[in-house]
Amino acid sequence: MYLKKLKCLNCGKEYAPGSFSYKCSQCGGILEIQYDYNSVIKSGFKEKMLNCRHIPNIWYFKELLPLENEKNIITLEEGNTPIIRSKIFVRDKDKPRLDFKDESRNPTCSFKDRPLSVAISKVKEDGKNWVITSTHGNAGIALAAYSARAGLNSLVIVPNKSPEDSLAVIQAYGTKVFKIKGDISDAYNFSLEISDEFNIVNLATTFLSPYTTEGDKTIAFEIFCQYNGVLPDWILFPIGDGPLLVGCYKGFKELLDLDLINKIPRLVAVQSEKCAPIARAYINNIDEVEVWDKDEETIAMGINEPLKGYPEDGTITLKRIKDSGGLAITVNENEIKGAMFDLIRKEGLFPEPTGSVGFAGAKKLYAQNYLKKEDKVLVLLTGGGMTDICIYKKLQTEPKLIDKDLGAFKNIWQNEISG
Amino acid sequence: MYLKKLKCLNCGKEYAPGSFSYKCSQCGGILEIQYDYNSVIKSGFKEKMLNCRHIPNIWYFKELLPLENEKNIITLEEGNTPIIRSKIFVRDKDKPRLDFKDESRNPTCSFKDRPLSVAISKVKEDGKNWVITSTHGNAGIALAAYSARAGLNSLVIVPNKSPEDSLAVIQAYGTKVFKIKGDISDAYNFSLEISDEFNIVNLATTFLSPYTTEGDKTIAFEIFCQYNGVLPDWILFPIGDGPLLVGCYKGFKELLDLDLINKIPRLVAVQSEKCAPIARAYINNIDEVEVWDKDEETIAMGINEPLKGYPEDGTITLKRIKDSGGLAITVNENEIKGAMFDLIRKEGLFPEPTGSVGFAGAKKLYAQNYLKKEDKVLVLLTGGGMTDICIYKKLQTEPKLIDKDLGAFKNIWQNEISG
Repeated sequence: MYLKKLKCLNCGKEYAPGSFSYKCSQCGGILEIQYDYNSVIKSGFKEKMLNCRHIPNIWYFKELLPLENEKNIITLEEGNTPIIRSKIFVRDKDKPRLDFKDESRNPTCSFKDRPLSVAISKVKEDGKNWVITSTHGNAGIALAAYSARAGLNSLVIVPNKSPEDSLAVIQAYGTKVFKIKGDISDAYNFSLEISDEFNIVNLATTFLSPYTTEGDKTIAFEIFCQYNGVLPDWILFPIGDGPLLVGCYKGFKELLDLDLINKIPRLVAVQSEKCAPIARAYINNIDEVEVWDKDEETIAMGINEPLKGYPEDGTITLKRIKDSGGLAITVNENEIKGAMFDLIRKEGLFPEPTGSVGFAGAKKLYAQNYLKKEDKVLVLLTGGGMTDICIYKKLQTEPKLIDKDLGAFKNIWQNEISG
Repeated sequence: MYLKKLKCLNCGKEYAPGSFSYKCSQCGGILEIQYDYNSVIKSGFKEKMLNCRHIPNIWYFKELLPLENEKNIITLEEGNTPIIRSKIFVRDKDKPRLDFKDESRNPTCSFKDRPLSVAISKVKEDGKNWVITSTHGNAGIALAAYSARAGLNSLVIVPNKSPEDSLAVIQAYGTKVFKIKGDISDAYNFSLEISDEFNIVNLATTFLSPYTTEGDKTIAFEIFCQYNGVLPDWILFPIGDGPLLVGCYKGFKELLDLDLINKIPRLVAVQSEKCAPIARAYINNIDEVEVWDKDEETIAMGINEPLKGYPEDGTITLKRIKDSGGLAITVNENEIKGAMFDLIRKEGLFPEPTGSVGFAGAKKLYAQNYLKKEDKVLVLLTGGGMTDICIYKKLQTEPKLIDKDLGAFKNIWQNEISG
């Protein structure tokens, strides 16, 4: 379509578009995809964005997605996730307007369907038939679903502490799942050995390949359309290594370059304090992110990302945060759980712990007076809780078996329900 | 808005609209909600339907939904679920066009969000603050989510064999869950005793109240809009007692009366052969559905509905099936499992077993030559598998823990993956 070249963010080397690509072969730098923007403008893309009334799926934005031929699109109607006004924030006149973008409404309950729809379509375009990824769960489920739809074979490498529910879902699609001892960085590094050895496509949703971040950027485009071009002042993201934030930055930058907006929102990375390499660098005012050496568990497993072997991923994320005038902050375990149960019990939404981290960050920034009454704030709920129900089972007791006896139930009502 | 009256389908007694209503107080018959259709037409509803480009949620159809004041709407952006073309059917030129409407894309992963959004909004309009339902899971999750959003208190009564994952989700929202020994009919009947005794609103998604089926009918309206008015010839539903089918029939009937269509699609009820009171009556050419006495388990738990105490629910469903020129059929356990894994592994969708029953029926009707090459067939996938992941865990072995050793992995590749 309008794919023009791939360019290394580090050394500037350029590559012609072709088959599925990874990092720069010259320096190992992260590649970015560039389009023929003049042709994109001539195609009527700007008018389509300005007059958007309905986004059937992310391929609405196909002019700025990296396929050569749209017949290779593999879609499960991902994207077009709703923006939902916070009930907690709306009640109080002194609070800013706060909305959620609920990515759990994607086909497999997380935003990962966006990068995987793009990446699997590209693999299909190349005629390859095996894919691999490393994952705690969400990226693996998305890989499994899109591979099934595309008729590709797939396998995933997971840390042994990954949620068993998510692994069962991945297996149900027919994807092979192998656990290894270690964390997500270990799983990623081993998946690279395997993809090298067997010459299969590695679809890690890190910065390994620029195709996946192109999927992530569709969130920025949707935000533009859903707010009719009047963007939020702040957008909060749960962050592991950060391709979602970097992808969204690129999306907003493209809108800026197309004169569709005049300012990029302030992008806020929220990390768990148990694993916060990017926030640590931000707080210490260091430009280069370093590997996180502590091995601590967090309930927000999806962003438990120490960057072992690829700290430069964190550095590019940190750069984009600063470019946007944003922040990187941490939240603790209680703040994450509190935000999650606020979302479930007061908003009626159902995020996984990781998906709640952005809201934990928003509550903290509001308490610290960063978010003002006149601000418009958007929190990304990146994934749903349905793919890790074990979490909730651990936090509550099993339902009671009772007799079908109204007399006995009156006591239960009085003692356990109405009280 | 345009709510006019409630009318008993049995004795014809009419009721003025007011607070949340149940069955006819005179004869116990099922009530149906009627609108001031002339005012609906004057409001521009027909033009809105004909020119529809985007359905943000089911309240797009508010002119034909039973609220007095739209400020009472409680929504989680339910509805607007995608229609997805079958890959299995598209490959073969002799097969009919077959699409899925994927109701797992609703906020809590099933179509139950539609009736519960309407019912909870009505309860809110009435100023009540306690609700109850009986459920195997899906209706309970929807009740829990909408109650949380509306700030209502809620409890559910469930059969003791209900999926533990679903119950954990219901509890996470803060809804009280009580198990009883017995089936869904027992749970329903006990919930009625409780709602009577404590004067709380019973939101059973049977035919207990006409408000819930009004939510179900929004599927018919969406189908009209999504197919630009050219309806499928056949629509297949997994059926327990049938308010979903009856609700959709009412929706299509309203479109017929508004001259928006000239024919109602043939509605096919698909039941598990382990519990098939409606299909049994249809096959034996009997007009009155009888209670199902056998107590057998089916993997399609959501439609394991023996109608003990309310066989007349089945009778109205049977009547609507016949009114539409449709069919009622059964499928066996292997057919259900086969359809489910076809959907997961070949289509990339993720229905629960119950949600797959309609597709099992479609495959059977195609094999029996009911569905012709020139037909357009729509299968409702009523709910997603994420809320009962235990099912998949039981059907597959746990992932293997392996060493991060490429040499060892070469053996695994040769013996367990590529082979």
